[in-house]
Amino acid sequence: MSDSTHTQMWEKLNLDLPAHDALLGVLGKFYGDIYLSQENRLRGAEYLDFVLSEVHGLRIKELQDAKAEGRKVVGSFCVFVPEEMTLAADAVHVGLCAGAEAGTNLAEQLVPRNTCALIKSFIGFKMARLCPFTESCDLIVGETTCDGKKKAYEAFNEIAPTYVMEVPQTKTPAARALWRSEIVRYMAELEKVTGRTITAEKLAQGIRTANAKRRALQRLTKLRAASPAPISGRDALLINQISFYDEPVRFTAKINELCDELEARIAAGQGVAPANTPRLMLSGCPMAVPNWKLPYVVESAGAVIVGEESCIGTRNSRDLTDESGTTLEAMIDAIADRYMKIDCACFTPNTERLDNVTSLAKMVKADGVIHYSLLFCQPYSHEALKVDKALAGAGIPMLSIETDYSMEDVEQLKTRIEAFVETLA
Amino acid sequence: MSDSTHTQMWEKLNLDLPAHDALLGVLGKFYGDIYLSQENRLRGAEYLDFVLSEVHGLRIKELQDAKAEGRKVVGSFCVFVPEEMTLAADAVHVGLCAGAEAGTNLAEQLVPRNTCALIKSFIGFKMARLCPFTESCDLIVGETTCDGKKKAYEAFNEIAPTYVMEVPQTKTPAARALWRSEIVRYMAELEKVTGRTITAEKLAQGIRTANAKRRALQRLTKLRAASPAPISGRDALLINQISFYDEPVRFTAKINELCDELEARIAAGQGVAPANTPRLMLSGCPMAVPNWKLPYVVESAGAVIVGEESCIGTRNSRDLTDESGTTLEAMIDAIADRYMKIDCACFTPNTERLDNVTSLAKMVKADGVIHYSLLFCQPYSHEALKVDKALAGAGIPMLSIETDYSMEDVEQLKTRIEAFVETLA
Ligand code: SF4
Ligand code: SF4
Ligand code: SF4
Ligand code: SF4
Repeated sequence: MSDSTHTQMWEKLNLDLPAHDALLGVLGKFYGDIYLSQENRLRGAEYLDFVLSEVHGLRIKELQDAKAEGRKVVGSFCVFVPEEMTLAADAVHVGLCAGAEAGTNLAEQLVPRNTCALIKSFIGFKMARLCPFTESCDLIVGETTCDGKKKAYEAFNEIAPTYVMEVPQTKTPAARALWRSEIVRYMAELEKVTGRTITAEKLAQGIRTANAKRRALQRLTKLRAASPAPISGRDALLINQISFYDEPVRFTAKINELCDELEARIAAGQGVAPANTPRLMLSGCPMAVPNWKLPYVVESAGAVIVGEESCIGTRNSRDLTDESGTTLEAMIDAIADRYMKIDCACFTPNTERLDNVTSLAKMVKADGVIHYSLLFCQPYSHEALKVDKALAGAGIPMLSIETDYSMEDVEQLKTRIEAFVETLA
Repeated sequence: MSDSTHTQMWEKLNLDLPAHDALLGVLGKFYGDIYLSQENRLRGAEYLDFVLSEVHGLRIKELQDAKAEGRKVVGSFCVFVPEEMTLAADAVHVGLCAGAEAGTNLAEQLVPRNTCALIKSFIGFKMARLCPFTESCDLIVGETTCDGKKKAYEAFNEIAPTYVMEVPQTKTPAARALWRSEIVRYMAELEKVTGRTITAEKLAQGIRTANAKRRALQRLTKLRAASPAPISGRDALLINQISFYDEPVRFTAKINELCDELEARIAAGQGVAPANTPRLMLSGCPMAVPNWKLPYVVESAGAVIVGEESCIGTRNSRDLTDESGTTLEAMIDAIADRYMKIDCACFTPNTERLDNVTSLAKMVKADGVIHYSLLFCQPYSHEALKVDKALAGAGIPMLSIETDYSMEDVEQLKTRIEAFVETLA
């Protein structure tokens, strides 16, 4: 497909073409510096490079083609929106979180200054007409997780109609009942928007597709326990980021291929860095594409990242939906149960996360953990204090980082991270 | 009661006596400057002065006496905790929110720096051993409202065991069902803690007592529509603050007496400020005792405050619980319905609040509104933008203030508020 066909498509989607071109230019340079410069990269990374280079191009074309065939596109900002259900309605499920500083000034007209960068980013992208995914959506689904998003959706709703699911704040039976009823409500909304009926057969297929993707990501997670580390943290993060955008069946096949390659590497004792490289795990807020700042800084500081305990990471792939149900009701129960296991910091209490962080850090043989909170993210800033204690109890040192999408603190982060890495060596 | 008996009591409650003495000293001076200096004050203000001067003294003695008689003390931080139910268990219901900067450094060991002053304050008071109310509690009840509090209770729970109620985030039937089940769970918890059985008769009495207090406060709200304003905003705020601490039947009687006096004043055309004084309404976050900063600045800037749209204000007194139910089930339904009307910014959507702010501003004949958000309070900072639009639509100007408990910005606030008041004159 030629660039000019892309441009026509973007024009139809009412993007701000000059600003969008500039964004792609910056993104391309950024990707070159952070990704293409890596040594000992996997052959399978070609897929990642291609998908990323066409994230606003061919992938959007695919969405438009799906729409032309009568399918719908559903966008979400949180791993709580059940992908199984979206797939069961023959719709495309995409993530709309954004990881770049764009349109921040515009966003601050709609949300307070003291709002996390992730929220400002998705609002800014919309207001500055930079996001072809948002513009392709037939249904945008928000959710009541943190205060920042919950209230931002009210503002966002004024510029992009947003359907909101209520995620409860505890895991009591009553909260689970509320959540189950929200899944049923979402199902009805999907049926309305898509004009399709969600049958047991379709939902079973949706569950299998989502689970297959999760299994591929679980496989990747486990392979990263090997020493030397067989894949860089940057590439692993990119895989998780792409899991929110790419077609799930293709993605699953590609990641399984990539895992085959990893297995061969591991068998050959090969890695992306020497075996004595300090191994770090990241934990905390999601890093939406193209937020590669922290992994880049960490891996430039002489460490290698071996795990991401975040929603763009293991929090989204750790739990499978039970596949044994045969009726719609049983499957909805299975979905409700699966999602109620998510250990988002928005829950109270959320002690599971402390166990999960600790056991993941042990499993991937992390020498230390970097806890990452976006500035003004109250749920994860709170939990940083608790994760620190839990890890200390397991003898794993932790560094707590609070940052945003700006590049201003890169040097300062480098200094802190280098000092932390030195203590681990 | 002599000061030394108080001291013995505080010692038993394990307060930090020197620090507590210093706090009372500052508080007394502050009260003198802000309250006792007022002109044309009501005779009924004697009650307020007395209660405030004995807030840590006689009132705590009363709590200890109640405990000696086998009654229990329940503390809460939010108007969502149903007072009716607490009263039905023969327990004392007190507010634990705190409005002074104390123990902030200590609090920042448990909660992130980017946390609102109200939260830091109640945690700081506990950690610095300054709050005899918290120390008197047999049950401390938190709630899932904002992220800041929800997560802070987890930390607070480590130093003061905290029972948490789940407040939903929307007002759908499923959310109301969750909330109703939480009321039932709270009832069981109260029965366990107090050893009393909550009967229909007791709950009916609890509802009547809580409603009587609300009616007295509603009466006060309405009288403030008079011009000239019959009572200062400072005194009205103090009344609302005291409503969280004092014995409810006594409080109700005293406020009704005070309203009688106000009616006489109004009939005589008397007020606390000339009729042409600009009338302002406050709207937003609660101002917990002794947070009198903004009212003081506003009323020193040549305006008079005629309403407080906040939880320490009309949000807590506007709605009555239906008294017609005769069974426990019916009363629990009435309580669930009453509390689901609360227009806290933690809900999404929360459009009722926009209507309520506008109609209250009209009712009290406000010339303008000051929206008050505590720094880092995301729910109210978001809504400030919406309230501004709603009021603009009604032709009522609004000034948005974001501040905390420190005195550093007083001069800056004065300048901004004086400029705002000038535009109204
Ligand atoms: S961190 Fe929480 S709110 Fe954010 S995507 Fe994950 S589950 Fe959703
Ligand atoms: S990073 Fe934190 S504040 Fe931002 S959207 Fe996620 S949970 Fe909310
Ligand atoms: S503002 Fe909301 S969270 Fe705060 S006391 Fe009121 S209802 Fe509770
Ligand atoms: S002022 Fe805002 S942030 Fe603070 S406790 Fe109340 S709702 Fe939460």
